[in-house]
Amino acid sequence: MTVPGADRPISDLGEDALVAGVIRRYPGASWLRVGPGDDAAVLDLPGGGLLAAIDTLVEDLDFRRAWSGGRDVGVKVAAQNFADLAAMGGRPMALLVSLALPGDVPVGWAHELADGVAAECARAGAVMAGGDLAEADQIVVTGSAIGTLDSRPAVLRSGAVAGDLVAVAGELGRSAAGLALLEAGIDVGAPGEDPVLAGLVAEHLRPVPPYAAGPAAARAGATAMIDTSDGLLRDAGRIARASGVVLDLDPVSLTPGPVLLAAARRLGWGGVDAGAWVRSGGEDHALVACFPADRPLPDGFRAIGRVRSAPPAGSGAVLVGGRRPQGPSGWVLFGGPRLSG
Amino acid sequence: MTVPGADRPISDLGEDALVAGVIRRYPGASWLRVGPGDDAAVLDLPGGGLLAAIDTLVEDLDFRRAWSGGRDVGVKVAAQNFADLAAMGGRPMALLVSLALPGDVPVGWAHELADGVAAECARAGAVMAGGDLAEADQIVVTGSAIGTLDSRPAVLRSGAVAGDLVAVAGELGRSAAGLALLEAGIDVGAPGEDPVLAGLVAEHLRPVPPYAAGPAAARAGATAMIDTSDGLLRDAGRIARASGVVLDLDPVSLTPGPVLLAAARRLGWGGVDAGAWVRSGGEDHALVACFPADRPLPDGFRAIGRVRSAPPAGSGAVLVGGRRPQGPSGWVLFGGPRLSG
Repeated sequence: MTVPGADRPISDLGEDALVAGVIRRYPGASWLRVGPGDDAAVLDLPGGGLLAAIDTLVEDLDFRRAWSGGRDVGVKVAAQNFADLAAMGGRPMALLVSLALPGDVPVGWAHELADGVAAECARAGAVMAGGDLAEADQIVVTGSAIGTLDSRPAVLRSGAVAGDLVAVAGELGRSAAGLALLEAGIDVGAPGEDPVLAGLVAEHLRPVPPYAAGPAAARAGATAMIDTSDGLLRDAGRIARASGVVLDLDPVSLTPGPVLLAAARRLGWGGVDAGAWVRSGGEDHALVACFPADRPLPDGFRAIGRVRSAPPAGSGAVLVGGRRPQGPSGWVLFGGPRLSG
Repeated sequence: MTVPGADRPISDLGEDALVAGVIRRYPGASWLRVGPGDDAAVLDLPGGGLLAAIDTLVEDLDFRRAWSGGRDVGVKVAAQNFADLAAMGGRPMALLVSLALPGDVPVGWAHELADGVAAECARAGAVMAGGDLAEADQIVVTGSAIGTLDSRPAVLRSGAVAGDLVAVAGELGRSAAGLALLEAGIDVGAPGEDPVLAGLVAEHLRPVPPYAAGPAAARAGATAMIDTSDGLLRDAGRIARASGVVLDLDPVSLTPGPVLLAAARRLGWGGVDAGAWVRSGGEDHALVACFPADRPLPDGFRAIGRVRSAPPAGSGAVLVGGRRPQGPSGWVLFGGPRLSG
């Protein structure tokens, strides 16, 4: 089946429109409770709700071999996938990994990748269950994670209601700050450098999603949740659109803390906006969730805003202090920044 | 952790040794009944045994855009993954698909891929459950399939015993014959061409695994099973090695039939070995299984050999008519043939 514009390059159409167009082509099934379009799929199987997610890392887009060792990439592919399960309120149980790579990659790189995968599986309480190997011109690593909801309903993107608190667990902007330090060529391990800088680079290379906060949010009655893969504003916008509400974030709670300011200072402030790291830096894999305002937030979450009812034609917006934020909203595929660029 | 030879390129080491080295690095878990190394993982979850597999298609290695439309690639990625579940005796229930591609690919190609995935999901009785989109220099499509064992134990590669019959369900050599026709530049759709040739090309582009034969084999007491992704001899060798036996195949049952001979004739016989298509052509995704010889074979299976006890140092061999076969055994990664080459 072809549609008008089928000959256009996908870079013209953009990621969100392409995904929406593709999703419409898939029928449902009685055992598919949540299909494409949320952080993970929810399958109704005899033993209860099962979560499944898939996520890919591409060399020079999502990592550079000059900066990331095999172990870093292994940790990252596991963490990205497990964060998607946590964002549904679930607990990771297993990971599959497909590795496509050129034949000239050293054997040790593949072994390190396996070690990174195994380490992050252990941190998440999950197990590496299977894989595939393929040859390709650049390294492409795909993880697929399976998890359990422990008999709870999944927390979708679509349940936020006006009056809810918006809260976050995990860090915002640290991955972006670490990337900025790498891009500036700063040797953060050199004598005399502030050790927090090395920590930021480490968090960029090996994200540390707060897995336990996902089920904790579900137990505390979270109405909607997502992980910050593409940046707070962009991912919060996905909750706002799916729920038909506006998320109004508190500018004070998005003020960069001393660690981010240390990085901005080290970068000489020139062209550096530490606030933009917080608002639109991707790949921290923090959890952003909405909660009924009449209950205490679960451990690990801090409030960063309120859910408001959407005015006509204003549904899906994310505001900061009641206004549309300026500047980039987050990571964009096809024409966005490339690590190699 | 590094090992001696960690600096060697993986093309030196080869696929099987690399996989073995990587698998050793993964610990198990109480809920992982079958981990890396078989066709699919078996997870012990509250509701019973769950199957999970992952498999990747890379442009110019596994398909060429000049020959395969998006729909073909969508069918193929679903079929390869579901065949892995069938090879464990399971029934496909869901598929996740990650699509990495350059920004200049037409939107219609991605839509056709979705249509192919949806069509093959429907044929297998499964549902497309979720996906991911990434940017890459060449198209890399990864599928991850989830299935159920319907409370039966999984059929592994490792259970074949001396005296078993070796049997196959599905076609052998048709995908390889279709590829040879494409490589020769023959327009199989032209007027006057034998229509069986177009059928062979179609089976190369869109494999047709006999999904129902997987659970049927399990119900009939199959002791070992695998699907022919890399060619009969290579995949039968994996059963032989995992089971510590020898598989002795009957040369008469591996004789090319009239359809393959029609393709060989059309190719002028020059350099064409239709028997090699049967023995070592990959990507048919037929099911090769071993069965106790005292019971009838299930519908769809035909006997092609016997399992024999392994002589000292001979474990893992595949013989044809009692002898080591000559010629290539099947598809090999890293240094093997490339579709683009």
